[in-house]
Amino acid sequence: MRAIFNSWDTKYKQPFGATQANTSVKWAVEVDEEIQEITLWLTKNNESPVAYPMTFNDESKMYETSVKISSSGLYYYYFNIKQNDQFYFLERSQDGFGDGEITQDGRDIRTFQLTCYDRTVPQAPWYTQGVVYQIFPDRFNNGNPHGEIQGRKKDSFIYATKEDSPYYIKDGHGDIARWDFFGGNLEGIRQKIPYLKDLGVTAIYLNPIFQASSNHRYDTQDFMKIDPMLGTEEDFKNLIKDLHKNRIALILDGVFNHVGADSKYFLSAVTDKTGPYYSWFNFINYPTKYQSWWGVTTLPEVNKNNADYQNFICGPDGVLAKWTRMHVDGWRLDVADELPMPLLREIRERLQNEDCHVLIGEVWEDASHKFVNSEFRTYMAGDNLTGTMNYPVRNFIVSLLQANNETEEVAALNDLEKLVENYPKAFLENCLNNIGTHDTARIKTVLGGDEQLVALTFGLLFSIPGVPCIYYGDEAGLEGDKDPDNRRYFPWGKESDFLEKEVKELAHWRRENRALVDGKVGYVKIAYGINALVRYNQRELVIYCYNKTDQDMILDAGKLQPYCLPEKIAELVSDILDQESVAQKAYLLKTFKLDRNEKE
Amino acid sequence: MRAIFNSWDTKYKQPFGATQANTSVKWAVEVDEEIQEITLWLTKNNESPVAYPMTFNDESKMYETSVKISSSGLYYYYFNIKQNDQFYFLERSQDGFGDGEITQDGRDIRTFQLTCYDRTVPQAPWYTQGVVYQIFPDRFNNGNPHGEIQGRKKDSFIYATKEDSPYYIKDGHGDIARWDFFGGNLEGIRQKIPYLKDLGVTAIYLNPIFQASSNHRYDTQDFMKIDPMLGTEEDFKNLIKDLHKNRIALILDGVFNHVGADSKYFLSAVTDKTGPYYSWFNFINYPTKYQSWWGVTTLPEVNKNNADYQNFICGPDGVLAKWTRMHVDGWRLDVADELPMPLLREIRERLQNEDCHVLIGEVWEDASHKFVNSEFRTYMAGDNLTGTMNYPVRNFIVSLLQANNETEEVAALNDLEKLVENYPKAFLENCLNNIGTHDTARIKTVLGGDEQLVALTFGLLFSIPGVPCIYYGDEAGLEGDKDPDNRRYFPWGKESDFLEKEVKELAHWRRENRALVDGKVGYVKIAYGINALVRYNQRELVIYCYNKTDQDMILDAGKLQPYCLPEKIAELVSDILDQESVAQKAYLLKTFKLDRNEKE
Repeated sequence: MRAIFNSWDTKYKQPFGATQANTSVKWAVEVDEEIQEITLWLTKNNESPVAYPMTFNDESKMYETSVKISSSGLYYYYFNIKQNDQFYFLERSQDGFGDGEITQDGRDIRTFQLTCYDRTVPQAPWYTQGVVYQIFPDRFNNGNPHGEIQGRKKDSFIYATKEDSPYYIKDGHGDIARWDFFGGNLEGIRQKIPYLKDLGVTAIYLNPIFQASSNHRYDTQDFMKIDPMLGTEEDFKNLIKDLHKNRIALILDGVFNHVGADSKYFLSAVTDKTGPYYSWFNFINYPTKYQSWWGVTTLPEVNKNNADYQNFICGPDGVLAKWTRMHVDGWRLDVADELPMPLLREIRERLQNEDCHVLIGEVWEDASHKFVNSEFRTYMAGDNLTGTMNYPVRNFIVSLLQANNETEEVAALNDLEKLVENYPKAFLENCLNNIGTHDTARIKTVLGGDEQLVALTFGLLFSIPGVPCIYYGDEAGLEGDKDPDNRRYFPWGKESDFLEKEVKELAHWRRENRALVDGKVGYVKIAYGINALVRYNQRELVIYCYNKTDQDMILDAGKLQPYCLPEKIAELVSDILDQESVAQKAYLLKTFKLDRNEKE
Repeated sequence: MRAIFNSWDTKYKQPFGATQANTSVKWAVEVDEEIQEITLWLTKNNESPVAYPMTFNDESKMYETSVKISSSGLYYYYFNIKQNDQFYFLERSQDGFGDGEITQDGRDIRTFQLTCYDRTVPQAPWYTQGVVYQIFPDRFNNGNPHGEIQGRKKDSFIYATKEDSPYYIKDGHGDIARWDFFGGNLEGIRQKIPYLKDLGVTAIYLNPIFQASSNHRYDTQDFMKIDPMLGTEEDFKNLIKDLHKNRIALILDGVFNHVGADSKYFLSAVTDKTGPYYSWFNFINYPTKYQSWWGVTTLPEVNKNNADYQNFICGPDGVLAKWTRMHVDGWRLDVADELPMPLLREIRERLQNEDCHVLIGEVWEDASHKFVNSEFRTYMAGDNLTGTMNYPVRNFIVSLLQANNETEEVAALNDLEKLVENYPKAFLENCLNNIGTHDTARIKTVLGGDEQLVALTFGLLFSIPGVPCIYYGDEAGLEGDKDPDNRRYFPWGKESDFLEKEVKELAHWRRENRALVDGKVGYVKIAYGINALVRYNQRELVIYCYNKTDQDMILDAGKLQPYCLPEKIAELVSDILDQESVAQKAYLLKTFKLDRNEKE
């Protein structure tokens, strides 16, 4: 018996991907033999499975059922087929590109996922259609007249030259003994606005800028104060003003899970049990033993359920209100997984009240089915985060470029399409995609220093759904292994012209082709090392075809294998690519104007 | 039987202390019973003992003998007495203040030492009569207009603030990973000449200033170049010019035992066996294993017997010639113990040719009887070093101030007088005395932060024979434990007015009283915590009397116990001190004009 189902093909499931609550989803399965019955088993997380019998449709020749999904959440499903009084399970095929497969083994059935969300997240055009640039403030640019460094912290070190390689100064126990600084600051960023504008950047995301001891500033001392080494509140306002004048938005890093052990909050708590901050922390043995982030005692964890703390962050005079009212355009939330969902919703609400609609969570995995301490995180619901930092996309891009054969390439494309399926479309388009951040090795180093390959990863970053985010210096050819080496100072005057030019072109391409923002996604397998990503909406079709091999290639329509593309689009792509040549370690950008009013 | 001998009393031995070759020394022993014979046994190091029978002098009632000591070197002696066919040994008493004592045990006889030297070392008046100030160049003063730091070394660190506490940045193996700098420089020293002059300083001794990787610069990269972080050769010349204009001399640190592993010399040796520098080093397994200072692989040891290297250091176009011709006034030799004696003589000869007469060796112990690898170091001979860094004096001063009772105080005074006995007078007066250097904990820290006690140590430093050398910052009340904490940045603007004033007064006192330079030395025990040092020559008598206790004291002539003083001087001291009061934790300076033409 053959039973065909493919969750990525609208012939079998409609609509594609995630669905909004209170809309109907239609499933259809094709079976090539006589069967007794077929049932859709649909389970919502933490609830009992529900059986939906499927009925044969004479016209389509398929077994079908429609279910109105009434509440948002995480759903799993598979099909149960009865034939000759035997039971078969139609489960998700392991690497099957959306396909199902039949098994009689009822243990550990590989289910299909259905994401159901409440609300569509807002899409701030400057963000969703934009190009973001991540800056680690200490390492980007010092804007002082003679490069002097203000607000120096006692018992810390300054790198002797801007070319020094970052180094953690640790004591004999492996703990940080002194912090190391290059001395980048806000004024330095402001002075580089022309550079950013020229690159095509429309928003910058800054790692934390509030007063702290460390160079990364994730150990906040005072949420209400710009770190004196970065500048004054005046400098901050000037930066925003000039950014906005140049149509560049600003996203800040909100670090609300923990504070610095030398913060005013924690210092008060450990010295005064009756003070206002004692209840913010969870002491195991006052005052020496307390809950801290990953056991790092310099980062005491805050009790995020504390109403006073919540009000401090989300209240009308709180941290978010203060800075957002200075016209901050968006926030990125550090370790979002550790913040209670109610707090995330409160944060979102506060930001909406301040007319701020971008709230990106740091989540490293597929955020549509993330559990923390056995509790499902309802990131997709639409009432909390508006997007996540999309590390899975980095994995996909790196895997694709490092794949040793076509099987590995298909697995990588498969991984990407799973994300496309699992995430609500608007949410995915809001995700902050990267090929490297302050927490990963730099892409050029990962790729052995090959700038042509780096250029291909930029092409992929700009081709897949979500907002491309460039980690400062990646476009300049900066190298660096994982932390701290990935936090070198920007190589002003020694940038890679080649990569900067590539990024400018891709930013221009994204600006000119809306399908790169809101288009659906499909793939074309061509040969090992050569693949295409396709984005299309009603009016445009764009193709990004890369060739990572050492040989120039002429494409042959007959050998193209499209995935996840409607037939007509697939044919059009074939026509467009036929006889095109793609140079070795280079890519091809193709744009085609459509006039479609049809639905696939 | 009582037999009396005291090597510190000219009644028993003349002349006192060390003697020049080819002069006669007279010994006399008083015995209170009939004896058969008494013999002086005199042994020169590495030679057989020689017996000198002593004869009874009817006038003095003592057994006497005179010996012309014909060759310089280290001599030991004791006396052998025969009475009733029994043998007795008159040996040095353990803590007897120069006294001998009788034993019948002939094993391990404690001999008296006699130092015999060839030549009297020269005494450059600016040096011997001066006050030296030691500067660790990275930590004294930055003279650049905005405190900027030139010549920064790649992959090194700069302290964020001048108040930072020094810290060794080490890797997991405990090796230095990066060097740390405050950024003091030559121009900074030049700008502080008025400060030094005001303090009473007449010479500065600089820790190494040639190009090197580290902040201490004992790992020379290039002997012919000023470290770029310290300045240019022009800066160096300007510094010398301005120092000399202000009658301040300059002593440099010569580091000729080892070089930096990243020096041009060693880098050439490890890459080119046929190159000019290969023979400078001792390779155990070329090129990875080689002899290095204390096994520190970053400091390869030079083969100092290599003629080419000797010529590089001492030749007419060598290192010493180059810098001395720029009017350097003196040199301090790092790890002098490791330099072969012939090289020391060559260095001295080169300096004399360049009209430079100060050559101070780093020797931590009593340099009159130092052995290295079983070889006697002829430092006192007069043809090599002109003096040593006098660390024993620091031990004496600290021991005296920390003594818990009178016995410990006498032991400390005893230790000092041994040095006075063992060193040729001119050599001792050339020694660079200190109460702290870059290689010791700072005196204020050693004394628990008590500046009044620190002032007493300064008084002692200025009272005992040798040239007082102030380690930068000690006069400013700078604290610091041993290396690296003893190398903090000078606390400009936060100096101890009290200690600076004390040093100024002592420097003035030394300037005005030549006996502090060339006078003989004696002691007065008064009570626990209260003692006096006496210096006297033909024309002056000076007394330094300190009271380390918490009580003001009125002195009583009847209770004073003089040591090592001729009777008339002792009486005069008693008269002068009688009924004088010495405040708690303070001192008394007394000066008296003499007109003596007598010999004691």
